[in-house]
Amino acid sequence: MNDASNAPAAATGPVRRSRDVPMLVERARAGDPRAVARLITLVESGDEVLPQVAAALAPYAGHAQVVGLTGSPGVGKSTTTNELVRALRARGHRVGVLAIDPSSPFTGGAILGDRVRMQDHATDPGVYIRSMSSRGHLGGLSAATPQAVRVLEGAGCDVVLVETVGVGQAEVEVASLADTTLVLLAPGMGDAIQAVKAGILEIADVFVVNKADRDGADATVRDIQGMIALGERGPGEWRPQVVRSIAARAEGIDDIAAAIDKHRDWLERHGELRRRREARAAAEIEAIALGVLRARIGSLRDGTQLPTLAAKVAEGAIDPYAAAEELLSQLGS
Amino acid sequence: MNDASNAPAAATGPVRRSRDVPMLVERARAGDPRAVARLITLVESGDEVLPQVAAALAPYAGHAQVVGLTGSPGVGKSTTTNELVRALRARGHRVGVLAIDPSSPFTGGAILGDRVRMQDHATDPGVYIRSMSSRGHLGGLSAATPQAVRVLEGAGCDVVLVETVGVGQAEVEVASLADTTLVLLAPGMGDAIQAVKAGILEIADVFVVNKADRDGADATVRDIQGMIALGERGPGEWRPQVVRSIAARAEGIDDIAAAIDKHRDWLERHGELRRRREARAAAEIEAIALGVLRARIGSLRDGTQLPTLAAKVAEGAIDPYAAAEELLSQLGS
Repeated sequence: MNDASNAPAAATGPVRRSRDVPMLVERARAGDPRAVARLITLVESGDEVLPQVAAALAPYAGHAQVVGLTGSPGVGKSTTTNELVRALRARGHRVGVLAIDPSSPFTGGAILGDRVRMQDHATDPGVYIRSMSSRGHLGGLSAATPQAVRVLEGAGCDVVLVETVGVGQAEVEVASLADTTLVLLAPGMGDAIQAVKAGILEIADVFVVNKADRDGADATVRDIQGMIALGERGPGEWRPQVVRSIAARAEGIDDIAAAIDKHRDWLERHGELRRRREARAAAEIEAIALGVLRARIGSLRDGTQLPTLAAKVAEGAIDPYAAAEELLSQLGS
Repeated sequence: MNDASNAPAAATGPVRRSRDVPMLVERARAGDPRAVARLITLVESGDEVLPQVAAALAPYAGHAQVVGLTGSPGVGKSTTTNELVRALRARGHRVGVLAIDPSSPFTGGAILGDRVRMQDHATDPGVYIRSMSSRGHLGGLSAATPQAVRVLEGAGCDVVLVETVGVGQAEVEVASLADTTLVLLAPGMGDAIQAVKAGILEIADVFVVNKADRDGADATVRDIQGMIALGERGPGEWRPQVVRSIAARAEGIDDIAAAIDKHRDWLERHGELRRRREARAAAEIEAIALGVLRARIGSLRDGTQLPTLAAKVAEGAIDPYAAAEELLSQLGS
């Protein structure tokens, strides 16, 4: 395994010189795990060379299938990811794993967890694993993760698994950047009903009922299938698959892999892969453009223009909308 | 009381014509609660006449003292607010209340709660009460609330209480828009320690230990005073006050009001009121400017430019940063 988890502190320094970027990308292309780690660190930190990194990686975009895995704490995401990596490797794929949200029981509080996972693939040069904070400079998952995916694509990964704990917005975000989204559930956790409420049916391409040897597994599967049956979808639309697994005993993993393949085939056959990726690229471009504009506005904070306008607003001489207009006109916008 | 809680559905329609705005503001100035309700509805919905509303209200900015109240669910925010309104009325103030986050036990699940609160001031024309969702068109508390405060200032309120449940970012946001921030705690809730962790010491101008007849009240007061004693502050800086209350029995409310007055005096004497309001206005201008730019970028979604760029990014022809640059150049930015 290539431990892309933590770049040594020294690695971030010299990289800031832009002439190092092409070399780094070349080394990452050649499979150097340290170069992959450095690039992801640059991406995560919102470094100023980021546009250059992105430019160097652009030609390799779209190579990998991006698979999102989400689910509540305790459903077995880490174990499932681990076994899935094994199954994908057995099929000859190079695999990247981005584990988002270090506060989750697996990726986070759990340096131990990471180590256990690493050990399983410790001798395998075809696997990159990386934990990422969900709070980045650029606003979290949605901003840094697509770039990290590009790095792993650049490094030759055929599949990139993006694992995130299914809480709040994270699961929706992971779905928006994945080609295929797996939602993991476990029997008896009330997840199925929660799932409906949270609109998870909208984002799941494959439901995995893990811990399928537990009481209530049949009921959970039935609940989900009932939900799917009730869901409205057109004739050409994907019908979410339901797969059972017992990841801790490596059971059902091939079924998960098969469901992922099946969905990938469907995406390609229906032109949906292209559509999803273009929508994703559009969102990414918008987010970057907005970040640029935000930075430009922020740069006015230290000048005299914003403080002058603020003083006028505070004393009631003008309203904040008029002040914003004036600020924008000073930006040339 | 002027029930500014819910404007009748019919009220929003005709207001969209911009020539109605000056009339609405005039009526709100004259104390018409329906006009106040309509204006807040416009503000909350991010209506297109918003800049006009802001322009019409600008001259009245800075009239009111804005007091933020925050605390965990169950500390007695609603009861305290209610009694505080009574005390402020007794001092001859006109009072506005903005209760943010309808999911909180008081403002939300609790239409009942609102009604109870309303009833207490039902015959009082000097009180406006309004519940606001924390999820507005423009990004929540930070965007819509300052404008709603302006409406209440325009309506002649001397004090505007902004009440929000102290969870996550909301309490920091409320502090950023208030002249004076009260943090409510109750004995035995572990709040004091939580408070330190959450950096509440940074935002509280006045700590209110409510339910002070409960076991552990002395310990809670001691804990807070200990925290305050440990806090670093320069010679000219405000030292947070600690006040005890039993809001359910209307005890200690005058002490809270006195602490608010004292803080206000301090703010004015140290030029801090002006400084805070200018900082607030600057943040508001930035947020509005960013919203304008976001809308401009969003407007490109329906054109051909963004989809064309997105397709190029998806196929690896260009990188998303270069695409964002091009998008911005097309915006003239």
